[in-house]
Amino acid sequence: MLIVLVQVHVKPESVEAFKIATHENASHSRLEPGIARFDVLQQADDPTRFVLVEAYRSSTAPAAHKETAHYRAWRDAVEPMMAESRRSTKYNNVSPDDASY
Amino acid sequence: MLIVLVQVHVKPESVEAFKIATHENASHSRLEPGIARFDVLQQADDPTRFVLVEAYRSSTAPAAHKETAHYRAWRDAVEPMMAESRRSTKYNNVSPDDASY
Repeated sequence: MLIVLVQVHVKPESVEAFKIATHENASHSRLEPGIARFDVLQQADDPTRFVLVEAYRSSTAPAAHKETAHYRAWRDAVEPMMAESRRSTKYNNVSPDDASY
Repeated sequence: MLIVLVQVHVKPESVEAFKIATHENASHSRLEPGIARFDVLQQADDPTRFVLVEAYRSSTAPAAHKETAHYRAWRDAVEPMMAESRRSTKYNNVSPDDASY
């Protein structure tokens, strides 16, 4: 399993629009065969900060995700909402194992 | 759902011991009624860095977790393995909803 954590910081006036657009993208992303999880988290003490927890079943699944219509629509919709560039970090699962994702 | 992301930086010589101790703690933690998920991730480009993704079903569940024998054993076992203090950040779930955790 390849897990990508994406740190997102949005403009204060874009918080609600970002949540709607990102829930839409997440709902479609979870139906991709290469995606085991696609969670959207909002920071409790700063509602302008979010983390996306994206769990991919293979090293090629992230590229496949970026070719989908729902990803491209989301990318374009949220581009003007960003307060700063998104930051991604890649992880491997230690626990649980792949079968539990 | 209350999701806590814990950033962990361990000493290079402690990486394997930390993985074993943390897998043990995570396996027991997932059996707690207040815990929906307890994932352990290792950073792909720096094996000394980990993230714990802890999803709690209520605001009181984190305190209950810290009273368990498995948490206390883990806390004491990993204390000398830390390269720096752990950092926790709290989040709320935007997507999926609670029922999907």
